[in-house]
Amino acid sequence: MNSPETSRGALFDPTFGAGELSALLSDRAWVTAMVEVEGALARAEAKCGVIPAASADAISSVFARIVADGSVDVGALGDAAAAGGNPVIPLVKLLRSEVAATEAGVPGGHVHKGATSQDILDTALMLLCRRSGAHVLASLDEAVLCAEALSRAQRGTPIAGRTLGQQALPTTFGVLAAGWMTALHRASRALFDALDGLPVQLGGAAGTSAALYPHGLDVADILADELGLARQDVPWHTDRTRIALLASALGTAAGAVSKIATDLVFLSSTEVAEVSEGSPGGSSAMPHKRNPVAAIAARAAARRTPGLVATILGSMDHEQQRAAGPWHAEWETLTDLLRLTGGAVARIADSLGGLNVHPDAMARNLDITGGLLLAERVTGALSAHTDNARDLVTAACRSGHRLDEDPGLLEYLPADEIRALLDPAGYLGHAHDIVDRALDTVARGREGTR
Amino acid sequence: MNSPETSRGALFDPTFGAGELSALLSDRAWVTAMVEVEGALARAEAKCGVIPAASADAISSVFARIVADGSVDVGALGDAAAAGGNPVIPLVKLLRSEVAATEAGVPGGHVHKGATSQDILDTALMLLCRRSGAHVLASLDEAVLCAEALSRAQRGTPIAGRTLGQQALPTTFGVLAAGWMTALHRASRALFDALDGLPVQLGGAAGTSAALYPHGLDVADILADELGLARQDVPWHTDRTRIALLASALGTAAGAVSKIATDLVFLSSTEVAEVSEGSPGGSSAMPHKRNPVAAIAARAAARRTPGLVATILGSMDHEQQRAAGPWHAEWETLTDLLRLTGGAVARIADSLGGLNVHPDAMARNLDITGGLLLAERVTGALSAHTDNARDLVTAACRSGHRLDEDPGLLEYLPADEIRALLDPAGYLGHAHDIVDRALDTVARGREGTR
Amino acid sequence: MNSPETSRGALFDPTFGAGELSALLSDRAWVTAMVEVEGALARAEAKCGVIPAASADAISSVFARIVADGSVDVGALGDAAAAGGNPVIPLVKLLRSEVAATEAGVPGGHVHKGATSQDILDTALMLLCRRSGAHVLASLDEAVLCAEALSRAQRGTPIAGRTLGQQALPTTFGVLAAGWMTALHRASRALFDALDGLPVQLGGAAGTSAALYPHGLDVADILADELGLARQDVPWHTDRTRIALLASALGTAAGAVSKIATDLVFLSSTEVAEVSEGSPGGSSAMPHKRNPVAAIAARAAARRTPGLVATILGSMDHEQQRAAGPWHAEWETLTDLLRLTGGAVARIADSLGGLNVHPDAMARNLDITGGLLLAERVTGALSAHTDNARDLVTAACRSGHRLDEDPGLLEYLPADEIRALLDPAGYLGHAHDIVDRALDTVARGREGTR
Amino acid sequence: MNSPETSRGALFDPTFGAGELSALLSDRAWVTAMVEVEGALARAEAKCGVIPAASADAISSVFARIVADGSVDVGALGDAAAAGGNPVIPLVKLLRSEVAATEAGVPGGHVHKGATSQDILDTALMLLCRRSGAHVLASLDEAVLCAEALSRAQRGTPIAGRTLGQQALPTTFGVLAAGWMTALHRASRALFDALDGLPVQLGGAAGTSAALYPHGLDVADILADELGLARQDVPWHTDRTRIALLASALGTAAGAVSKIATDLVFLSSTEVAEVSEGSPGGSSAMPHKRNPVAAIAARAAARRTPGLVATILGSMDHEQQRAAGPWHAEWETLTDLLRLTGGAVARIADSLGGLNVHPDAMARNLDITGGLLLAERVTGALSAHTDNARDLVTAACRSGHRLDEDPGLLEYLPADEIRALLDPAGYLGHAHDIVDRALDTVARGREGTR
Repeated sequence: MNSPETSRGALFDPTFGAGELSALLSDRAWVTAMVEVEGALARAEAKCGVIPAASADAISSVFARIVADGSVDVGALGDAAAAGGNPVIPLVKLLRSEVAATEAGVPGGHVHKGATSQDILDTALMLLCRRSGAHVLASLDEAVLCAEALSRAQRGTPIAGRTLGQQALPTTFGVLAAGWMTALHRASRALFDALDGLPVQLGGAAGTSAALYPHGLDVADILADELGLARQDVPWHTDRTRIALLASALGTAAGAVSKIATDLVFLSSTEVAEVSEGSPGGSSAMPHKRNPVAAIAARAAARRTPGLVATILGSMDHEQQRAAGPWHAEWETLTDLLRLTGGAVARIADSLGGLNVHPDAMARNLDITGGLLLAERVTGALSAHTDNARDLVTAACRSGHRLDEDPGLLEYLPADEIRALLDPAGYLGHAHDIVDRALDTVARGREGTR
Repeated sequence: MNSPETSRGALFDPTFGAGELSALLSDRAWVTAMVEVEGALARAEAKCGVIPAASADAISSVFARIVADGSVDVGALGDAAAAGGNPVIPLVKLLRSEVAATEAGVPGGHVHKGATSQDILDTALMLLCRRSGAHVLASLDEAVLCAEALSRAQRGTPIAGRTLGQQALPTTFGVLAAGWMTALHRASRALFDALDGLPVQLGGAAGTSAALYPHGLDVADILADELGLARQDVPWHTDRTRIALLASALGTAAGAVSKIATDLVFLSSTEVAEVSEGSPGGSSAMPHKRNPVAAIAARAAARRTPGLVATILGSMDHEQQRAAGPWHAEWETLTDLLRLTGGAVARIADSLGGLNVHPDAMARNLDITGGLLLAERVTGALSAHTDNARDLVTAACRSGHRLDEDPGLLEYLPADEIRALLDPAGYLGHAHDIVDRALDTVARGREGTR
Repeated sequence: MNSPETSRGALFDPTFGAGELSALLSDRAWVTAMVEVEGALARAEAKCGVIPAASADAISSVFARIVADGSVDVGALGDAAAAGGNPVIPLVKLLRSEVAATEAGVPGGHVHKGATSQDILDTALMLLCRRSGAHVLASLDEAVLCAEALSRAQRGTPIAGRTLGQQALPTTFGVLAAGWMTALHRASRALFDALDGLPVQLGGAAGTSAALYPHGLDVADILADELGLARQDVPWHTDRTRIALLASALGTAAGAVSKIATDLVFLSSTEVAEVSEGSPGGSSAMPHKRNPVAAIAARAAARRTPGLVATILGSMDHEQQRAAGPWHAEWETLTDLLRLTGGAVARIADSLGGLNVHPDAMARNLDITGGLLLAERVTGALSAHTDNARDLVTAACRSGHRLDEDPGLLEYLPADEIRALLDPAGYLGHAHDIVDRALDTVARGREGTR
Repeated sequence: MNSPETSRGALFDPTFGAGELSALLSDRAWVTAMVEVEGALARAEAKCGVIPAASADAISSVFARIVADGSVDVGALGDAAAAGGNPVIPLVKLLRSEVAATEAGVPGGHVHKGATSQDILDTALMLLCRRSGAHVLASLDEAVLCAEALSRAQRGTPIAGRTLGQQALPTTFGVLAAGWMTALHRASRALFDALDGLPVQLGGAAGTSAALYPHGLDVADILADELGLARQDVPWHTDRTRIALLASALGTAAGAVSKIATDLVFLSSTEVAEVSEGSPGGSSAMPHKRNPVAAIAARAAARRTPGLVATILGSMDHEQQRAAGPWHAEWETLTDLLRLTGGAVARIADSLGGLNVHPDAMARNLDITGGLLLAERVTGALSAHTDNARDLVTAACRSGHRLDEDPGLLEYLPADEIRALLDPAGYLGHAHDIVDRALDTVARGREGTR
């Protein structure tokens, strides 16, 4: 068992959105996956005639029991792993002794036959990636749906378009949400692709499957089928491009989250107040606080991912037939990346799913500048009456007057006409078209992955 | 002009393999691309009836001349860019004055009409990515071909398989080269995909194309066609997922290079000496040195990429409608990434293309351990004669004897039979199959992108 | 010369604040530094009797002329560097031919005697770091002064304290600026320490100075004195801890800038508007925009540094006596880091130095919540009149009333008394003490480095 | 309790050397530290007259019991933390209810009085850093001693100096070990400095300690003394420079380890075989393997640190008075960094401490090139006999002859004289001086920190 003195994960995982992912990526999940791989290997080898079917049956049954009762002492296994540098070595010893303890008379050599530690560990890692990756993907798709719902519902809600932190021109909240949606959607598709081809690993001590010859490649293919993984083209002990692409897709998803989270934190600020989370965090000392906690936690989790992606990319230099360090550096880095990305996505989905939108605040903020956001439009209308339109409007902007109260402009246009021109809803350009196009793109993209 | 006092690139780019990429990603290339975008915008707007065809003709002609004669003073432009935070603002001013200086009577407002600085800069960046990316892709495909040729030529050449730095079992140099090839090939396909969809950017001040309404989306599509870029679904001012995926693909390619380069440096070492570069670096002081300079430079360039990918991923949090910093952080990071990845790939292609392979040294190294690499095989053969096979072989391994001179083994097997068992060529497992499968995978992959 | 087709730096450096740093870190600066090192080496060797004084004089004079007239063709040197993997090899050849071309009869061997390429390149890099580092340090100290001035001037100016994006309690702008100051100050001291000990490098081909024996260590010490660098304890060809600490100090300084820049962008936003830059960026299309361009550019430059620091740290694994890649990876990474950090610091100093502070806007924003920020204080005062104080105040907060208009509270306290309690200037805690302590800390810190 | 289904750490920590650090950085350690801080806060407030001494006594006693019996349910606390975004909020609730459950009649408000969540969490983090940092420092100093012992013992043992992977000139193993020592030593001093000043954090809701006024700063100072932390100058909620410098020092230490580990893996390779670990990892399938597992694990742990340092540096942009994400991103990143750095250092100390050095193999490898390493020296001797010395030696080098068997050279020098010149022990330059200087530097450095 993990000692309560040394274990970690329980204190911070829920805050960072890890939820079910914690269990899919825990020490226990690793051990279970490794045992499953060893069991499936025995079955695959029996199908190829490498070991007797009776051996595979006995091994499968023992290992299934071990998985079911969670009886492997993870702490002891971890301690024993240090000597050889990975947990497969002591695990195989343990599994062989468990098999030997039955009355089936199966030789220890029928367990882990022809495999090397990396075969088991890499394949187990692929299982973890597939299972937790599917979870991340489901969260991503949920987040896309939330953004989509906001985009539809607020399709025409005017909001100030802000560039470099400054109000620029009106747009709609629907357009903003549509941008969140397209980014999440693209990240989702990239992750789908990266997960889709995660293969089994089986090459034996030096990658030639010499100990299983001439059955090595067949065993590998059947093993893949047993585990629901893609077949390997060839053993990939030191070709880590698939892992790099998976890490990259996760980092991209986290980046898409970070944009949304940053927007939500700003839009939730006391001064802007255009949105608020459905379940904001409070403060015992400050009863008025409405902290956008889900967005903040998503933002934090997302920020921790680029460094992990860099670690994976920087550790692609797997030497010769097995890397002396770069391989080991991947294990926890990849599971951290899955957990943090999945957590970031889950929390942003929560934030978006419960988001309260405040169109009145958006309208109020649109009016802060006294119409300056529509200066361009007023200039256009004024041009019909004077050649000095641009100069007059610029002077009005600088005067500090609201445009509909500026004497210079009122000379040419009545106040109510100016006020009508200042209505942001009348100067939204292609906002509606953009929302429609984005919705259409996502709908078509969904079909593509079905 | 760039001042010779401040410019950079010339001193180190050739070492890091940048070659032609330097010119495709230089200050001059940026300026050219931005002018091209402004020219194409005018033509697209004329086609949509936003500005008169005569304006577009005049603008196109002036801009084509500016591109051709390289007359923009880059240093002055750069200095002027600081005030507004990007070079488009002074460039537009300059372009308008150039147009005004002609006798065509084109109003300045017909230049850059309805566009925002980010439209021009992002679209120019996509042009740079497309052009330099195609170059990187060509280098990658060249490197794949070099690895493929090595894999074919050395399909059956035995070499020690080395795991964790230690000799493990025999494999072939063909298998090692096949692994290099598959990694480069997968990276090449990922880069192809990432480059394929790089779109135009056009959304105007706040992303709604209000100033071009109702022609905004049409202008954007035609602009894309003019420039040979993909059409945008919607403006993507703050959705940076495509840039993240491009950066990731580049980082993956560089990682694939780093594995090869690290292998080559080790295999070229004085003690191993199994390969040597065709054009090694010398040393005036040490006439015997044969430094694998191309691999070393490739390794160095590749190592600089993960941090750049992390910068891109970490800067996906583009705020609201235009980012206050994250956007600006992308520009040089992405061009550095293209240059360094392309350089790494080009130098590794050089290294592989001219590589001298020394099968004799491989054979000599395979014999260093006195047969220990084949201990597993000897154990198998001995098992036919004694139940103690494993213990006898283990004792022989520990004794320091060559296995074909160990008295314990000679009791059961004659020396020449042991010696035959120690021939690595007889214990290569699926080495040949693996090379064939890898070649086949790459061949099919190539068809897929044609 | 650098070709105008391939050079870079001029277009973006000014935006990112590089200014004078561009020249201190350019190709030309590198070449100059390398030539200076070779000249100083000759003089040091003459002092130790390794070469004749006449040789050193002639060499010094030729090299001084080369530096002065900038006659080295950087492009040709860079091209020639690729073959051996560094520019020292062709530079030495060139320098020897220049010396040979004089009538002094100095043998070529008196140039670069007993040195290896890494000696020259590392020492030149240390010169570049010292010179540009001093510049960064001066900018940092300037930025500290700007923050200090703001802190003093706005010592008592109330502003909303914002936690997690939400207004929390009042504080003063002086406290905020004091925090900027202490961070910049600490970063400045760390950078001072890191720069202080940058040493010369001289160890010859394998780090033993065999070719200069028994004068090797003496030559190294005199070389250090000649160049104004610290003496080396021992050659440090593959001990890169000093470079790591320098990179870290730069990254820390950039991080301190990123906090300030992020604050300034938020405080400058249209809705908050509590500060504005003295020279904001405008927009031709949007006359009302006041983009805090200096802060934005500082933020962008700062964001590019963590990945570069990671590259330096990740490349500390310099193999054996000279690294095959990790060394080469440092060159441009370190100069990029110096340039970007220096640029970020310079632009934030500009932003702070010209900052317009708007106490009226701060006051207006403090009032947005209708007194909720002072709820805690009102509760305290109300407690003298009723045991229900907390509940009454909480109810008032939720009602949407201003606290000084809430009927429940007015039952116990007159409106003007409540209004007085809502004055943020009366609830600033230790704000003044904190500013004083911070100013004192910085003043004492300054003395420490004098 | 942590659920065995979700907890992690036990499986991989021992491999990566975490050992005792796991317990110092676990969920439990976090909770303990936070409770300790709350207890010390009560005592400090009692000393300043903020709460009654009786309250502090009762609180201290309850909290000491909670720490001793480890009764806080970490899993429940973690789950409850998600709503507010940090574990302090539910912990304070729990602690108040524990205090209320006693008969001391202490009001809940005497717990956590005037503090904000970040005060508690930051101070607890500083406690974790101090405690685990001291452990890392002790390991570093142990590693320095191991390198020092090797340096002394092998002061004169010749080994091939290898540059860019190629043998260059002889040096000694003592010099190599001395370089490891100086790097570890410098990293140790940097870490000592970074740990030395880690301060308490106490500023209340917005950093002004308004709720404790006029006792806020005094309480903070006494709290620091209670906990054995440095006093704060001022609250540093959003000035993270100290954390950045700590992270940087850790990253530098890990980098120093990575260089040693990479060297050891190479020197342990089958072909080089100049060192071997005292407790190498074996392989069930390959009885001859001697994997340098400690160095490999150290290398892997070290490789994971640069990305974490980048995360810390990239998250220095703490907004306003409390960061919405960057703060939260630090927690696990910093503890991961401490654990991995400490683990890397511990495993490299193990590797160095038990290292077997094989001078015979070093001698054999020095002879591989048939004397080419001493070509420079032979040229010197030959110069006394002919003006053609350099050409003759170069020709001999290219011929493939051993230099002492080359007919061209034998014409001028007898074979035994050439052979004497080829003795690497005679051409070690300043090797001995360098070892002595390095030992002296480290000895003086140690005095400096005592």
